Amino acid sequence: MSDSPISFDPTVVWDRIESLARHGKHGETGVARAVYTPEWRAAVDEVMAWCDSVGLETRLDAVGNVWGVLKGTDPSLKSIVTGSHIDSQLPGGRFDGILGVIGGVFALGALKERYGAPTQTLEVLAFCEEESSRFPNTGFWGSRAITGLTTEADLTNVVSFSGEPIGEVMAAAGFDPARIPEAARTDIEAFVEFHIEQGPLLEAEGLPVGVVSAITGIRHYTVSVTGKSNHAGAFPMDLRLDPMAGAAEMISNVINRANEWGRPAVTTVGRIAADPNFPAIVPERVDFMIDARHPDPAKRLELYAAHEAALQEIAARRGLTIELSNLMEHHPFVCDPALVANFEQAARTVNAPFQTMTSGAVHDTQQMGRIAKGVMLFVRSKDGRSHTPAEYTSPEDAALGIEVLTEGLRTLAYR
Amino acid sequence: MSDSPISFDPTVVWDRIESLARHGKHGETGVARAVYTPEWRAAVDEVMAWCDSVGLETRLDAVGNVWGVLKGTDPSLKSIVTGSHIDSQLPGGRFDGILGVIGGVFALGALKERYGAPTQTLEVLAFCEEESSRFPNTGFWGSRAITGLTTEADLTNVVSFSGEPIGEVMAAAGFDPARIPEAARTDIEAFVEFHIEQGPLLEAEGLPVGVVSAITGIRHYTVSVTGKSNHAGAFPMDLRLDPMAGAAEMISNVINRANEWGRPAVTTVGRIAADPNFPAIVPERVDFMIDARHPDPAKRLELYAAHEAALQEIAARRGLTIELSNLMEHHPFVCDPALVANFEQAARTVNAPFQTMTSGAVHDTQQMGRIAKGVMLFVRSKDGRSHTPAEYTSPEDAALGIEVLTEGLRTLAYR
Repeated sequence: MSDSPISFDPTVVWDRIESLARHGKHGETGVARAVYTPEWRAAVDEVMAWCDSVGLETRLDAVGNVWGVLKGTDPSLKSIVTGSHIDSQLPGGRFDGILGVIGGVFALGALKERYGAPTQTLEVLAFCEEESSRFPNTGFWGSRAITGLTTEADLTNVVSFSGEPIGEVMAAAGFDPARIPEAARTDIEAFVEFHIEQGPLLEAEGLPVGVVSAITGIRHYTVSVTGKSNHAGAFPMDLRLDPMAGAAEMISNVINRANEWGRPAVTTVGRIAADPNFPAIVPERVDFMIDARHPDPAKRLELYAAHEAALQEIAARRGLTIELSNLMEHHPFVCDPALVANFEQAARTVNAPFQTMTSGAVHDTQQMGRIAKGVMLFVRSKDGRSHTPAEYTSPEDAALGIEVLTEGLRTLAYR
Repeated sequence: MSDSPISFDPTVVWDRIESLARHGKHGETGVARAVYTPEWRAAVDEVMAWCDSVGLETRLDAVGNVWGVLKGTDPSLKSIVTGSHIDSQLPGGRFDGILGVIGGVFALGALKERYGAPTQTLEVLAFCEEESSRFPNTGFWGSRAITGLTTEADLTNVVSFSGEPIGEVMAAAGFDPARIPEAARTDIEAFVEFHIEQGPLLEAEGLPVGVVSAITGIRHYTVSVTGKSNHAGAFPMDLRLDPMAGAAEMISNVINRANEWGRPAVTTVGRIAADPNFPAIVPERVDFMIDARHPDPAKRLELYAAHEAALQEIAARRGLTIELSNLMEHHPFVCDPALVANFEQAARTVNAPFQTMTSGAVHDTQQMGRIAKGVMLFVRSKDGRSHTPAEYTSPEDAALGIEVLTEGLRTLAYR
């Protein structure tokens, strides 16, 4: 195995990206492909056909995850799995998720072609759902089933934006909800997710590739600030209990704190509503959401404690009532150091300029981390854009990322 | 005319408040009475019956304003008019507007009973519409017709929240839109509006009555702050162009400025929206509205200039684009000093504890100010509440306010 690393033609990679983007095509460069829709099924079928065409053992599991297996010669070893998700935002772009599936099929196909069966089984995986773009509370529907954490209650509690329970939607798409437990796996050693960065850091550094050492933890707070609604003219400033004034100070406070902490801390207020929402009435209540992230488990909790203390102090000082609830929590995931080192070496071997970095977005890797070791590989995103049709990764970067993935899977699985 | 001032029994005043509140009754203490509805018509009919019962010459004008006339003995003198509006918020309370109509009927009835015909004609007026609660852009439908400023274009451009042009709605209510110009008046010398304060200042001072020396000017700005939408996790703080961070700083800035200026300056942000409005996305744009008021014409413009300069500075410093448009403008109205002095003296005569103050709310008096001198009288509002069923003024305060109104009209009209 001293030959040169496997390389991929960027135009061939690009053709496959374009081909998949037909399923749920949205405008010129967008994709809107939600789980269990006809366009999603068309994408599933195309990925299965690719797996078949390179001689993988292809199957669709009970929730709709696609698996392509390249059997290893040592049956005592657990699998090494690579992949990402096949669904998209509504609309998202052509790369988020699906590039990891395309890359995995290319990698396993090329390894099989050059080296035949690996020592350790390699599998490519397309998760059926990750984006929560059709059902807001799926909680990683594909990877959660693989880890065995989907419950029967989810079938009715996970409801689409238009009110359909996911159990009914899956059944209509030809999947028997009673069989979901069959999707669970306990025989995976490592999961490797290849993905676009979705941020601007690699581009800013002029690097095509990132090896991810940790994935951020997230907490979503809902903050409800209640004051006293009053006439915007007849009620003087000094007697007001104005929840908008309080909310504005709170929003500035948490955003400023993340700014002061610097990378990799982030805090976002993306959602806000006033009640009532009239120009000439001091609102009674202002609700907003805080998304705060840090990949370091201890620093993350320190960030949250500082945010919470400031919110409470501002409310108390202004005579406002605050309700703070913790709507969503993802713990940070620390990638396996040996896997990180393996892919750093793979990047060096294929001459891919890279940095080791953290991920500010959450990924299926965190879920897979419950049952396996994990690591991620990033490729550069143009302008850091994602979750939009403007999302872009060049054919050259995509192909180079697949080369790093392939080389890293080779050193892991062929011994 | 050296007898004691005319007094009113609070229980009689209260009965009339309760009686009028039946038309559009909303819950226990609320009123929802929009112009040209059957409940509005029932209120109009009741007010006309009251005017008839005390011997006023009663008529409904072309837009639906009610007039009750007590003819003066000197036909060379223009009229002195008192009144307020008969419509309400949806729901509002039992006092806003209608108390000035009830007070005017009581005043003219009692003056006629005790003193007969005045020297100068006295008229009581119930404006058909002031609240913009059914049609958001009426712009004072009742008083605007009296000042002759209603246009034919208004009949189609003024549209209800449910999409009906006001011309069609008035016609269905039995009013011929072509006759609106007949409602114009050019023979009014003074307009006196008796109204609840709608704020907490009189209550805070322990005073039942206020004599208004100036009515605030208002400007409504729409502010649109555009940055760059990005992923809440993958995009680091230092590279963001976050319009929410900018909006929060702007909102704090303008509210803080009004706080620092102190009374009577006010600034309110009551309406806000983020686009997109998702918890995990830095918004592309945040829109909000600013309501900023000051009754002093020069200081008002100074406040606006300071607000605008700060908004522009914050946007420029943060690399955000700002669009600032001036949606609504009401100029301040300075009440006639002689009329103010007349009602201050009336309050002293009837032993009503009072202060001279400005109005932070806009009123029909500002419109009437285009064709006549004007002044307002306030009575105390409980907790400063208004535009809500919780609005409350005690029977004693209401009766005392009517006594001041009656005494002031007497000294103006009987000579």
